[in-house]
Amino acid sequence: MAIITVVGAGVMGSALTFPAADNGNDVRLVGTHLDGEIIESCQNQRFHPRLRRPIHDSVKPYFHTEIAAAMQDAEVIVLGVNSRGVHWAAEAIGPHLQPGQIVMMVTKGLESSDEGQLQILPDVLRSRLPESIRDQVHYAAIGGPSIAGELAARRHTSVVFVSRNGDILPKLRSYFMTDYYHIWTSTDLIGVELCVAMKNPYALAVGLAAGVLEKQGEDIASAMMHNYAAAIFAQGLAETAILVQKMGGGLETVFSLPGAGDLYVTTQGGRNSRMGRLLGMGMAYSDAVEEMPGETIEGVDATIAIMPAIEAMMERGDLPADGLPLLRALYRVLTRNAPVDFDFNSFFSKLPFTPPTR
Amino acid sequence: MAIITVVGAGVMGSALTFPAADNGNDVRLVGTHLDGEIIESCQNQRFHPRLRRPIHDSVKPYFHTEIAAAMQDAEVIVLGVNSRGVHWAAEAIGPHLQPGQIVMMVTKGLESSDEGQLQILPDVLRSRLPESIRDQVHYAAIGGPSIAGELAARRHTSVVFVSRNGDILPKLRSYFMTDYYHIWTSTDLIGVELCVAMKNPYALAVGLAAGVLEKQGEDIASAMMHNYAAAIFAQGLAETAILVQKMGGGLETVFSLPGAGDLYVTTQGGRNSRMGRLLGMGMAYSDAVEEMPGETIEGVDATIAIMPAIEAMMERGDLPADGLPLLRALYRVLTRNAPVDFDFNSFFSKLPFTPPTR
Repeated sequence: MAIITVVGAGVMGSALTFPAADNGNDVRLVGTHLDGEIIESCQNQRFHPRLRRPIHDSVKPYFHTEIAAAMQDAEVIVLGVNSRGVHWAAEAIGPHLQPGQIVMMVTKGLESSDEGQLQILPDVLRSRLPESIRDQVHYAAIGGPSIAGELAARRHTSVVFVSRNGDILPKLRSYFMTDYYHIWTSTDLIGVELCVAMKNPYALAVGLAAGVLEKQGEDIASAMMHNYAAAIFAQGLAETAILVQKMGGGLETVFSLPGAGDLYVTTQGGRNSRMGRLLGMGMAYSDAVEEMPGETIEGVDATIAIMPAIEAMMERGDLPADGLPLLRALYRVLTRNAPVDFDFNSFFSKLPFTPPTR
Repeated sequence: MAIITVVGAGVMGSALTFPAADNGNDVRLVGTHLDGEIIESCQNQRFHPRLRRPIHDSVKPYFHTEIAAAMQDAEVIVLGVNSRGVHWAAEAIGPHLQPGQIVMMVTKGLESSDEGQLQILPDVLRSRLPESIRDQVHYAAIGGPSIAGELAARRHTSVVFVSRNGDILPKLRSYFMTDYYHIWTSTDLIGVELCVAMKNPYALAVGLAAGVLEKQGEDIASAMMHNYAAAIFAQGLAETAILVQKMGGGLETVFSLPGAGDLYVTTQGGRNSRMGRLLGMGMAYSDAVEEMPGETIEGVDATIAIMPAIEAMMERGDLPADGLPLLRALYRVLTRNAPVDFDFNSFFSKLPFTPPTR
């Protein structure tokens, strides 16, 4: 098959080594400068401490200092760093990239450019690679509901591989697909990247409901707060649809695996949900972060990273000013310690529904 | 305000009496012939045994034998029966309907006509009312994530009121909207009714994942089965979108409250999920129903009720034959005791994604 080099030994990059290695590829797992202990454990015990399971027999672990050798002759470089690691990754892989290689990003996120444009991470990465190579490699990404630990456990996982260059997709898929890893392909890079990035803020928002319920205390008939959560879920998806349409992506991406599927899976637990619960309980954001020391909460990072571009787009008239009320409310909660007190009636204003009179 | 008569004292109809009565309407709750004990309790103890809370101070409970008096001069008749009760309800309310009344259905479901057409319940109801009145009343329905117990607990609940006749919607909404009951309006009756009916089969299908997980047993790293569930969630929404588009409904209905929101809330528990879990554990359907005696499982009823029309539509070429693989797989599980063993690769074939090679 192929040589596949995964850069970043966090859970998601490492999980991808399972279908890749099961498929007979030559798989190399390279830690970042922060992954030293993981790689040490992978080399010495053949055990991944964060996935909490043995690594695949055939996977070769590398320290970040060995990245040049690890990338040598690889058909695919998988970028498994988190959104804060993209700039580092560009510097780390840039000097070793070879023409024709495919760089596939697992990282979810968006950035605001200095000009107030929303940028998807494959474009951010490209702009930070050496000019001599940036147009000599292919860019791809993965979207869809994929909890790393489940993929590593070889549980059925369904995703979309996406690239603007449709020609590379059949080959890329052939390297990774197994009887448990189901891969569709799409050229809607902007749609997929928006969906997978926005699911983090919106999953955090759905998670607020659990905290609001705890704060309110017991109901005589044990009523929960699922209606509250579901309205936020729906509004999150509707806001994603607005953004995707405005940026030229496809609606089908929103109501399938990358949008609805990934948002659903992300509401089922994890750090975004835990942060949401703390905020829903009435904790100020500045206190809530103290409860989760050292953890990257992608929903927080994404909200803060994209808001400058969102505001600029609204000022330019590229986005309706009242089109993303949930994201804006969340931004106030995360940056101004605002209390969680949504105006539900502000939701769904851009759909062909008549909203509640206020 | 208005006189509002709720027919059917199950949880959903009864829950609607809370916003209606909080809003100052004259609210009458009429039990069906099966609701005798509930109405007795409401009359004598002012307590609703299935909602497990006192009824609203101002609500007037009626036995089914008193339906004529209860419907007298009502502006709105809310039909709160379940999908099996629609034919009964048509006979029960038919003789007492007065011109100009609004009949608003809470019931979720679809039927296959003898001609192999998919019929939404407001149309089924209309066709079974006396000819002299059926075109003298207005039809409306409610869609969106609304667990009855939460609405009765006055928790934030966001729904869509829908009617082909947009003129009645502002008034109808004004009767029900409160600071916890948020109401959008729409004229996409077909889209809303398809979404709210199809969420039951698809929520049942999402629930399978929990059972499959139990059957597989513990994983060394406690991996769950959320990726499996999320792929089914996404495919359920995508199949709903196919149906809605083919029947002339709007996609926006699918990715907002009636579609994504209601499917989400329905996966969070309830009878469909419990049945899904039993089937996912490997129990044959004929055994699983024995575990839930006397319970109406809307996801089962809906799947069986609509399949004749779906098959006929596919034969006529009105629907792509491979467009609803999840629904068809579920049908085999429910009617032929087929095991739960989805071909994930058959999913998403009607989206602009290239599916996995089989």
